[in-house]
Amino acid sequence: MATTHDHARICRGCWDQMRMPIPIRGPLAIPFRVLGITRSKMNPNICTICERSFRYVKKQRHISATATILFADIRGYTHMSERLDPVMLSDLVSVFHDQCAQAIWDHDGIVNKQMGDGLMAIFNFPIKSERHAAAAVAAARDIQHRCAERFTFADLPAGMALGIGIGVHTGQVEIGEFSTFRSDFTAIGGTVNVTARLQAAAAAGEILLTDEVAAQVADIAAGAATRRLDLKGIEQPVLVHVLTNSF
Amino acid sequence: MATTHDHARICRGCWDQMRMPIPIRGPLAIPFRVLGITRSKMNPNICTICERSFRYVKKQRHISATATILFADIRGYTHMSERLDPVMLSDLVSVFHDQCAQAIWDHDGIVNKQMGDGLMAIFNFPIKSERHAAAAVAAARDIQHRCAERFTFADLPAGMALGIGIGVHTGQVEIGEFSTFRSDFTAIGGTVNVTARLQAAAAAGEILLTDEVAAQVADIAAGAATRRLDLKGIEQPVLVHVLTNSF
Repeated sequence: MATTHDHARICRGCWDQMRMPIPIRGPLAIPFRVLGITRSKMNPNICTICERSFRYVKKQRHISATATILFADIRGYTHMSERLDPVMLSDLVSVFHDQCAQAIWDHDGIVNKQMGDGLMAIFNFPIKSERHAAAAVAAARDIQHRCAERFTFADLPAGMALGIGIGVHTGQVEIGEFSTFRSDFTAIGGTVNVTARLQAAAAAGEILLTDEVAAQVADIAAGAATRRLDLKGIEQPVLVHVLTNSF
Repeated sequence: MATTHDHARICRGCWDQMRMPIPIRGPLAIPFRVLGITRSKMNPNICTICERSFRYVKKQRHISATATILFADIRGYTHMSERLDPVMLSDLVSVFHDQCAQAIWDHDGIVNKQMGDGLMAIFNFPIKSERHAAAAVAAARDIQHRCAERFTFADLPAGMALGIGIGVHTGQVEIGEFSTFRSDFTAIGGTVNVTARLQAAAAAGEILLTDEVAAQVADIAAGAATRRLDLKGIEQPVLVHVLTNSF
């Protein structure tokens, strides 16, 4: 997939969702900026109409949609946060978030939430993508590669290794605003929670995919190991496909 | 503590941090709104200068500060998200977030992050509060009371109870922006992670406090049960003081 995140002249979210051309770059974007409509921090190819005005544009507080969710975090972050100098910890988190964002944007996802070291990305909303599960897996692999490259020279104290854990799942989610005082949207529902649990179960360097995702990336998942996991709060064991850096 | 969250005419964060009077209500606020400076979604008594322009105002990307952190979530949310109708789940999350926000704002905290059902609040930044640990505990108790009241009539499926788990810890944190593409600040560091772990260890209806917090609310914590917890990623067991609805 091509790097497109610094090219779109109109908001790709507003276009995909409503066929509405909202200029986000170039001279036509200036009057919009004056009105407070700027590029979104979630993805520089969408605008703040996508991000903030869910109920006014969609005329409903949330919608059901099919999407792929990705969670990523730094394994052992709590342990590190107890030992690392705060400035080094901050730098680590910044580099991680920036690398993740680049990888996610390159595959048309949005960085929907960041909390501490962790982040949640959504694929297929608001930028539509037919192969959203494949896009998320590509982004996940890209995150692992980027972090492996960036973090080799990080002078962490002896015995402290740095690794990223990622979970990817696809399915039905509720997207919208879930508090009356916040106007930025998010996705909730079982699919989202399974993804968060997958990520928590991923070891450093691993990308855990559900069956639903693996079916969409058969070529990549073909040789991958599988594992049956009992995830907290989820009744049935979940079969996961484990991608590592060698895939 | 008085309910002040709908009274301030100037941004309390800008005033406390910089002695700068930024109008956020009344006619004087209109020119600021035109410039895009509005009330923050984190707390309606602070403005978006506090929220978004950390590096320009403070001239540094992050600062060390003493603060109290509160994490709250709905216990068993993953289990619920697998079983509940998405609309009911959405309503549940919305009511929870709104009740939390009111409680947190009443005690001069900010709702810094929301992710799924969970949220993170900060006390003592940007609104300064000498007794920030006590304020956070008061907010936590308020959340429990509000949710106990609001959720009794929620027609959850039989056998599905609803309870809130809360963790509160106080100490040194790094506050600032931790990615180059996001301009909203957050707090990171060991104190934040311990709080997140406490919340994860709290049963429905419980508020877990560290020793540092309990020392600040001696009257409330006096009769509370204590528990020694092994928290993931944290080397030493942590002694917690357990507040329940009876306190």
